[in-house]
Amino acid sequence: MAMKKKPVTGMKDIMPEEMEIRDYVISTIKKVYKTYGFSSIETPSVEHIENLSSKQGGENEKLIFKILKRGEKLRLEDAKGEMDVVDGGLRYDLTVPLSRYYANHANDLGTPFKALQMGNVWRAERPQRGRFRQFMQCDIDILGEPSNLAEIELMLATSGVLGTLGFKKFTIRINDRRILKAMAAYSGFRPEEYDSVFIIIDKLDKIGMDGVQSELESAGYEEENIQRFCNIFTATQEVEGIGKIDSMVEILGDFLEQEVADGLKTIITTVLSVKEADFSIVFDPTLVRGMSYYTGPIYEIRMDEFGGSVGGGGRYDEMIGRFTGQQTPAVGFSIGFERIILLMLENNFQVPGSEESVALLIDKKADDDLTQKVFKEAKRRREQGQRVTVMKMKKNKKFQKEQLKKDGYQEIVEFFAD
Amino acid sequence: MAMKKKPVTGMKDIMPEEMEIRDYVISTIKKVYKTYGFSSIETPSVEHIENLSSKQGGENEKLIFKILKRGEKLRLEDAKGEMDVVDGGLRYDLTVPLSRYYANHANDLGTPFKALQMGNVWRAERPQRGRFRQFMQCDIDILGEPSNLAEIELMLATSGVLGTLGFKKFTIRINDRRILKAMAAYSGFRPEEYDSVFIIIDKLDKIGMDGVQSELESAGYEEENIQRFCNIFTATQEVEGIGKIDSMVEILGDFLEQEVADGLKTIITTVLSVKEADFSIVFDPTLVRGMSYYTGPIYEIRMDEFGGSVGGGGRYDEMIGRFTGQQTPAVGFSIGFERIILLMLENNFQVPGSEESVALLIDKKADDDLTQKVFKEAKRRREQGQRVTVMKMKKNKKFQKEQLKKDGYQEIVEFFAD
Repeated sequence: MAMKKKPVTGMKDIMPEEMEIRDYVISTIKKVYKTYGFSSIETPSVEHIENLSSKQGGENEKLIFKILKRGEKLRLEDAKGEMDVVDGGLRYDLTVPLSRYYANHANDLGTPFKALQMGNVWRAERPQRGRFRQFMQCDIDILGEPSNLAEIELMLATSGVLGTLGFKKFTIRINDRRILKAMAAYSGFRPEEYDSVFIIIDKLDKIGMDGVQSELESAGYEEENIQRFCNIFTATQEVEGIGKIDSMVEILGDFLEQEVADGLKTIITTVLSVKEADFSIVFDPTLVRGMSYYTGPIYEIRMDEFGGSVGGGGRYDEMIGRFTGQQTPAVGFSIGFERIILLMLENNFQVPGSEESVALLIDKKADDDLTQKVFKEAKRRREQGQRVTVMKMKKNKKFQKEQLKKDGYQEIVEFFAD
Repeated sequence: MAMKKKPVTGMKDIMPEEMEIRDYVISTIKKVYKTYGFSSIETPSVEHIENLSSKQGGENEKLIFKILKRGEKLRLEDAKGEMDVVDGGLRYDLTVPLSRYYANHANDLGTPFKALQMGNVWRAERPQRGRFRQFMQCDIDILGEPSNLAEIELMLATSGVLGTLGFKKFTIRINDRRILKAMAAYSGFRPEEYDSVFIIIDKLDKIGMDGVQSELESAGYEEENIQRFCNIFTATQEVEGIGKIDSMVEILGDFLEQEVADGLKTIITTVLSVKEADFSIVFDPTLVRGMSYYTGPIYEIRMDEFGGSVGGGGRYDEMIGRFTGQQTPAVGFSIGFERIILLMLENNFQVPGSEESVALLIDKKADDDLTQKVFKEAKRRREQGQRVTVMKMKKNKKFQKEQLKKDGYQEIVEFFAD
């Protein structure tokens, strides 16, 4: 009856040291988001395979862990393909289940509805260092609020969480899907070309303007369009702060509605005026974000001490309606929970208020009276919030004490039988 | 692109009101168990199908949600049976994964190792009221402690959790697998008959001694054995408290080791001497617990206000060794998390320290200055721990206010543009 000792490929066992930080981060996130009026909700880990395959999940739909039909429904012998033997799958994100949840319960939920979801998702990606096939996502979403109050709330709430966790230096980059489209239209690209053009401009900070230009050329776009497109960035790159949006308006003219620019400016100035931690929020016309379902402002958080994004999101006003038949404005912000944990582990983060820890060791020959005495002492200390463990003394007491110290029990008290 | 709105069969969406209680209970459980020296750990939801089918899971092995192999490994066309297309499954309990975890990491964990697991498990049971196919389990286990200090710690910790959650009146019933076996042996049953005899005596409180007797007769056991067996219970039923164990020792003579009886007595007297809440702990020779892997003391918690068990566990000294090849004493106690939540919902439990809640409503025509002012006011209140939501005023303000009150926003402040 040999057992496989390792976890399944690409998933991991979480050790006590990491769990202590995870538990702390989870409870901090829930506490802070609650003060911003977000309500915790939860959906099942298993989702209808039809919903997971509804083309809202992008590339993730290729990574579904599929669940076998059960009982009479499973007719393996007649199966022509996977879909004949599968009726569910593990969710690969929290957005598709949120849409289903909202479609199912909208009548019982306020408008706007502010949802907080913390839960595992599963993606069968090729295993690679630091990326796992099961990981926690942490999303806040506001459904039913068309104005940019929603974006402001998301950003203040999320930066509030990061600040409470001790991250003070980070940058929120913000752009708007409609500015991206206006830039592409102004440059002469055709709508069906937009997405692939955006994928290339997204790489600007990695490959530089020359790199962008040559990738656009390799992709076979017209030279004139490429020139017009690249000129937008060259012309505005020196402009700092909110002025960059004005420069963009000037260049793009009728291609960009003034309202879009004003909306972004309101978000940025309001967040800057209210924020406390040492973070910044900047307009970045090269920010793209992967998912094509975004319809308005999009944003991403970068930590100065860490290359890459630790969170992001955007407005997706059309997605919920596609599921429910009823148009519902929606914005979301997802914190990169696993990256945050990784950073805190690397920084040797100590969970604040870690209790005094004490081990009470009982003589092997203890009678019931001594045993009771020790557990009463344990109770007294536990009521004071101390972490207390009660153990028998071992033969090799030196080793036992070393091990206890390693486990964080600074104080060791021994109780001997008479 | 029609979406299925309901959750998958037998699983449920969790609404904000229930989630608030769940979040509170989870954080309370983690906090209290931590003072008892338990460390949170986590295993993946997906487990090797071989481990789930290793005969440690009893009836649950029939209820596995199986996960389809992926990519080249999946050869649907050659499949002879389910096992050819499946390589993983959703865990149906936290005990099998704990064994694997301990086998994988024993060298990095202290001895004894005190583990706390809170996590979802999945069982494809026939859907029925109040039972779901995804539910949370909450287990504490002590691995590597052969003495009954382990049982005492489990009981004090679990009753500490229940007390902190406001449950004061409950009963821990305790028995020992070795007493059950001694009773069966003394009565003349053969070892292969034990388990089915135990299943019948387990029903004593439902069907009475006459019912037990007639079920044993229907099962075809020898009349003499049945008489001897039933006489044990009749002879001891009047004896109260710890004396019942002594009566049992007297009757069973050499069939029962004195050590077993003494061990139970130590557990009971120690827990009684230390406990604070208004609960009791009683020896109950009819307590069986389903799983045959138990080897020593077994126990179950009954809430006076609620028929049926809200938690239980036992010693299972042989299971880990069967997986790891190395004998490891082990005890576990599982709280019926979902039942606890159900009870708290029925009792209209109010999460303590629920914040003051306030909605700040902004005039539709607000400029950036007013918007900033409102978000600054929100920030001030959030820093005081208030729950604050910021919204645009709606046309139908009366309806908006009613809805906000329904969502718990007692205070509503309006900000008008000049």
